[in-house]
Amino acid sequence: MGFRLANIEGRAALVDGDSWWDLATITGRSELADPMAAIADPDALHAASATLAGIEPGGSLGDVVLGAPVPRPRSSFAVGLNYGGHVAEAQMELPEVPLIFAKFPSCITGPDTVVELRTDTGDYEAELVVVIGSTARDVSADDAWAHVAGLTVGQDLSDRGLQFAAKPPHFDLGKSRDGYGPTGPVLVSPDLVPDRDSLAITCEVNGEVRQSDATGSMIFDVATVVEYLSGILTLEPGDLIFTGTPDGVGLASGRFLAAGDVLTTTIEGIGTITQRFV
Amino acid sequence: MGFRLANIEGRAALVDGDSWWDLATITGRSELADPMAAIADPDALHAASATLAGIEPGGSLGDVVLGAPVPRPRSSFAVGLNYGGHVAEAQMELPEVPLIFAKFPSCITGPDTVVELRTDTGDYEAELVVVIGSTARDVSADDAWAHVAGLTVGQDLSDRGLQFAAKPPHFDLGKSRDGYGPTGPVLVSPDLVPDRDSLAITCEVNGEVRQSDATGSMIFDVATVVEYLSGILTLEPGDLIFTGTPDGVGLASGRFLAAGDVLTTTIEGIGTITQRFV
Repeated sequence: MGFRLANIEGRAALVDGDSWWDLATITGRSELADPMAAIADPDALHAASATLAGIEPGGSLGDVVLGAPVPRPRSSFAVGLNYGGHVAEAQMELPEVPLIFAKFPSCITGPDTVVELRTDTGDYEAELVVVIGSTARDVSADDAWAHVAGLTVGQDLSDRGLQFAAKPPHFDLGKSRDGYGPTGPVLVSPDLVPDRDSLAITCEVNGEVRQSDATGSMIFDVATVVEYLSGILTLEPGDLIFTGTPDGVGLASGRFLAAGDVLTTTIEGIGTITQRFV
Repeated sequence: MGFRLANIEGRAALVDGDSWWDLATITGRSELADPMAAIADPDALHAASATLAGIEPGGSLGDVVLGAPVPRPRSSFAVGLNYGGHVAEAQMELPEVPLIFAKFPSCITGPDTVVELRTDTGDYEAELVVVIGSTARDVSADDAWAHVAGLTVGQDLSDRGLQFAAKPPHFDLGKSRDGYGPTGPVLVSPDLVPDRDSLAITCEVNGEVRQSDATGSMIFDVATVVEYLSGILTLEPGDLIFTGTPDGVGLASGRFLAAGDVLTTTIEGIGTITQRFV
């Protein structure tokens, strides 16, 4: 069946086309008002989505501001160097195991935001973000997708100066300035995208395409990353996994983000997020 | 005045000596039953602690199992290479800025636990853990302690094999296996410890002292770390900061943890936590 889940003023809402429905209202289950509770119950999301055609929408998406589909993840993981083109432009060696770092949850925001750069080494990284839907511990790659609630678009915004300030370099802080983790516009169940293992992903700065690839180019695909993480720690509903970025980042070209820039990031079948920088 | 805050079966409790009092019961404020809500209201904790002498305790600490004082931190930060002796034994250079990594919140547990090692490269790191008590953004070192709710004992348990598996090495996963972040036994307000800037810290394996130093040996002290982090991102109540470990870790001596080992970690004025390994 499939669902598209949005966060409208802190409440979970289902989306179809340009319309939205308040999840708690249409299901009569007040506990599903909380987006975190909704994400932990994908079955309810699928079932409720099947009823939308007969229910008057709550309103139009054009009239609301969307928040982060997952506003309070317990953990937010990111995979470094997960596309061959990006590994090459970074002049690194191909990783033998996933390189996992943190985007601290304080940086996670909604899809359309104004971001304070704070330095002149701000950079973009278009990324597919996986959202866990059920507790996962020691799951195999074959079973991994059963633990995924859905997919969303993310930007792994990065302060390159800060990223490499500590020795040895640890990416976490450079990736976690306030506002540096925009996500959205909606959480889409994997059955609603054309190919959950390969989706077109693009990133534009002021209308100029800087990154263009497909998520099928990942070195470690979604199932492999979920297997790897769940062999080390317990994933829980709402955990985020930023799955890495294709080539074309500003670090490679020397073209960093500046005040006034507009960044748009699009993934096929999910949507677009937009950041304006100050 | 000061307070000692414990987590007893998921409920916030104040502690004095061997006795505990349920916080929501003695204050008549049901919302303070949640330890996360209690941590965010240090004023209420100080005030309630002043009333304990006249109230019958809820029970004795010997009869309960303590949970993590901060069961659901939004973010859990850790400082690497923050004691000169440990930097030397690790054969690293002295850091110029704090090296911050993540202990993912899924690893955080209570004070007295059984830990599944999973590999033969498990190691111990005794650490003072700082708990944030109020939102902190761009605070100076002079103001930093005003944003600290209190201190607790932590173990930054580390799987050294995993810690160095990714290239470039990122510590996060190796520090975040399930059960690898024990904390407790209680959260102590800074005014109740002998010297918030220098407390004796020791770590024993099967009764043999392996680490013994004072937190005053930190390269970047608590106030400096809070200033640094809050200049990058917004700290919120309940955020944890593991502040680094003295020398004497197993990685340096080649003596890793094994099944059957008993690890005890003590910080002056706070208490002791104990891990048994399987």
